[in-house]
Amino acid sequence: MANQDDNLLKKIVAHAKEYGFVFPSSEIYDGLGAAYDYGQNGAELKNNIKSYWWKSMVQMNENIVGIDAAIFMHPTTWKASGHVDAFNDPLIDNKDSKKRYRADVLVEEYIAKVEAKINKEVSKAAKRFGDKFDKDQFIATNDRVVRYTEEINTINTRMKSAIETGNLNQLKELIEELGIADPVSGSKNWTDVRQFNLMFSTELGSLAEGANKIYLRPETAQGIFVNFLNVQKTGRMKLPFGIAQIGKAFRNEIIARQFIFRMREFEQMEMQFFVKPGEEMQWYEHWKEHRMKWHRTLGLGDENYRYHDHLNLAHYANAACDIEFNFPMGFKELEGIHSRTDFDLKAHEEYSGKKLQFFDHQENKSYVPYVVETSIGLDRLFLAVLTAAYKEETLEDGSERTVLKIPAALAPSKVAVLPLLQKDGLPEKGREILDKIKYDFACQYDEKDTIGKRYRRQDAVGTPYCITIDHQTLEDNTVTLRDRDTAKQERINVLDLKNRIEELVSLTGLLRQIG
Amino acid sequence: MANQDDNLLKKIVAHAKEYGFVFPSSEIYDGLGAAYDYGQNGAELKNNIKSYWWKSMVQMNENIVGIDAAIFMHPTTWKASGHVDAFNDPLIDNKDSKKRYRADVLVEEYIAKVEAKINKEVSKAAKRFGDKFDKDQFIATNDRVVRYTEEINTINTRMKSAIETGNLNQLKELIEELGIADPVSGSKNWTDVRQFNLMFSTELGSLAEGANKIYLRPETAQGIFVNFLNVQKTGRMKLPFGIAQIGKAFRNEIIARQFIFRMREFEQMEMQFFVKPGEEMQWYEHWKEHRMKWHRTLGLGDENYRYHDHLNLAHYANAACDIEFNFPMGFKELEGIHSRTDFDLKAHEEYSGKKLQFFDHQENKSYVPYVVETSIGLDRLFLAVLTAAYKEETLEDGSERTVLKIPAALAPSKVAVLPLLQKDGLPEKGREILDKIKYDFACQYDEKDTIGKRYRRQDAVGTPYCITIDHQTLEDNTVTLRDRDTAKQERINVLDLKNRIEELVSLTGLLRQIG
Repeated sequence: MANQDDNLLKKIVAHAKEYGFVFPSSEIYDGLGAAYDYGQNGAELKNNIKSYWWKSMVQMNENIVGIDAAIFMHPTTWKASGHVDAFNDPLIDNKDSKKRYRADVLVEEYIAKVEAKINKEVSKAAKRFGDKFDKDQFIATNDRVVRYTEEINTINTRMKSAIETGNLNQLKELIEELGIADPVSGSKNWTDVRQFNLMFSTELGSLAEGANKIYLRPETAQGIFVNFLNVQKTGRMKLPFGIAQIGKAFRNEIIARQFIFRMREFEQMEMQFFVKPGEEMQWYEHWKEHRMKWHRTLGLGDENYRYHDHLNLAHYANAACDIEFNFPMGFKELEGIHSRTDFDLKAHEEYSGKKLQFFDHQENKSYVPYVVETSIGLDRLFLAVLTAAYKEETLEDGSERTVLKIPAALAPSKVAVLPLLQKDGLPEKGREILDKIKYDFACQYDEKDTIGKRYRRQDAVGTPYCITIDHQTLEDNTVTLRDRDTAKQERINVLDLKNRIEELVSLTGLLRQIG
Repeated sequence: MANQDDNLLKKIVAHAKEYGFVFPSSEIYDGLGAAYDYGQNGAELKNNIKSYWWKSMVQMNENIVGIDAAIFMHPTTWKASGHVDAFNDPLIDNKDSKKRYRADVLVEEYIAKVEAKINKEVSKAAKRFGDKFDKDQFIATNDRVVRYTEEINTINTRMKSAIETGNLNQLKELIEELGIADPVSGSKNWTDVRQFNLMFSTELGSLAEGANKIYLRPETAQGIFVNFLNVQKTGRMKLPFGIAQIGKAFRNEIIARQFIFRMREFEQMEMQFFVKPGEEMQWYEHWKEHRMKWHRTLGLGDENYRYHDHLNLAHYANAACDIEFNFPMGFKELEGIHSRTDFDLKAHEEYSGKKLQFFDHQENKSYVPYVVETSIGLDRLFLAVLTAAYKEETLEDGSERTVLKIPAALAPSKVAVLPLLQKDGLPEKGREILDKIKYDFACQYDEKDTIGKRYRRQDAVGTPYCITIDHQTLEDNTVTLRDRDTAKQERINVLDLKNRIEELVSLTGLLRQIG
């Protein structure tokens, strides 16, 4: 079921770079770890994803509005949210290499090695016994597998207990007992394990001493909570209502990897839905279902999504699940739906001394609303789109192509205008058509190389439709409209082009599916 | 000519808060200096401004593409750009109050006080001599004015020389000589003046010792320059071509003020246009003219814009000007157009050791392109729109209103659906209409209070059109469409609504004006 294809991820990374979707950040300086820049096609795709989410949340829902809060917030925000005290990773430094690691990940990697041994034993045995069964060898193999499995279980238990109880010494002891060495230097000369806060900090320079230490927000959600009352009052909102936001967040992850899946600087699309206490479970179920429906409108394949209900809930939640997507690394979190209770608003009440309540006219009393959150990683959704879109195909004529079957409404360019030849007035006619449609659609114009090569280029960047201008165009004002996915062409009058394309590529079509 | 109305700025700030455009950041924690959050109407207006700029730059120009680079960049970027060494303000701390000030601003404020004295002398004299001229008194007044003016000139000369030569001791001497006291505490107990870098720094935590110090980008431009080659090659761009970008930038200004005009976290909309060396002046003139034309399409009043040519050029520029707007604080920079030569690309070549050149097939040689930059402060443009839009009016019926005459294509909501009464099936008809148009336009629905009150509410948030559903609607399927600015109503069939509104509010209309 899972799509565990390391090769696919590599291909996507290479294709994303070659066709201007995603570049390694500061590549001329050999890159900055786990930071990426969106190129000319990536920026358009990302904007279109944002636009679809924003419209479907804000424009389509009378009781949801959007805001855009600053990345810099008052530092007490992060005391109240719990991030100053409890947003930590257990880290360990190697004294020789000076490299820093997540202590739990070192242990996990050790476990993965033991697992690899088990797999090797089992597949060797399967092969051998397939030729000729040998009872003694079978028992010996079985013993080894059982021993390894027990070892893994013990290690796992000890690691989890060390982390849960906050007894980081035990984690260090485990690392030393297992003889885990620095993967770079091979040294086993470790420091103690200590907690490392994942927030990036910086200083506002308006005070001479003890300058204000502030943080880059580690999540956009708090920008919504601190503005709850301002929005509710100035927007005359009644419960239930939602506040949506798209914006950057920052986490100083020690291990940031898997391309744009886990970056230190990333973008979230979040909506906090404020409800009457006691009604949170029905809204939790509503948003769980509604968000899945939204994802499915993109047509990336229903089989590529699944729910993952959280068994261990965060301290602020009374229900939580992820919508997972089948990435090249397997099923991983794409969006979270969390019933956050009144934890955040109450914490901000406590730290700010301000009432963050809603006056319920029917009940004739004030209370702190409960919150149901939907939170997507925008960069992850971008990767999900590329993952489902990337196809290597052989066409009917035997030629090969790499095509990005990006949902038309999200594609960087909607249409490419291609005069068949660079003569006979075809380019002039092409530009005349381009000048008619460029106000309404993001267009490409290309007159270089054979038409086949040009189709391949548009396929590779995911342009859903190509308009070809040929000699017949000059006679009857018709062009061919080629569909990226089927490679089929229809002949269409230039006067009908705008409406036809609108019908095929507009966001409105997607929005109508959600209703 | 200038719009120096302190009162107007105060009114805009208050209106922006009351109607969900701009809230002070983290207000429940008594705010964070010079940081603001965009509320439910502000976020929409800001998004619409971005969208218009992006489409007019990227979608309308075949040779301009957009990117979205990360805020985090390799730190050497800022060595190459000169920001590490030369992006400084001269600061001085008061030892008693522990407050920090810009030394040059302390001196400027002293000068402003002397200027105020001059103005007072002159206006007193004008009044007195208007009653009865007195030669001796006139001479005495004149002497004082001349003395004050000389004092100002001397101080100005000494301050500029101190800053230009980097001799910050002279600046401290000047402050002490003038007896300048801390405006808060009155203390004259000052530290030395020292240079303070305006970049915010933070640390990437992946190394144990000497963790990587990185910066929050102080401008978005460098994200374009380091990606120049990636975009040029993967986008098959030929000179001249441009790369556009919208994104956050950060400057640790000691004095951030005037609402959203100067914030520590702000957003830029920049386009770097790469040209053949020698052709930069013609492109500089092109963009200077084109950008002014763009601003004028917004209809904020041609008289509210002017050019300000830079006489003192930055080290990287061979020509530069601002487009200034008539803000409540007077004419101030809104957008900069700069001919940046090959300074940035050459600096990155030097620091990275990579060639950042374009191969010119006609000339059969490679060279580093020259760059013409257009750079808008998005938050400033937002403030410009509010400034021109804010009107207090008396209507024909004698009632008063505060209306935001925001350009229709940028307005947060395009249309409000208002059933005249909450009965007789009018709300049902209203929702039926809403459900038809909400896919295409950001709509409001409001059935509370009198129709007059509802018009006032929509006026205050700048909704350009209101649809009113009355009893006639149920008979002949027509509604009234009310124009915000003229308060005139037209009767229109529901079937024609979509096209009519589209015609009145679409961005396409603005885009066509630029051509």
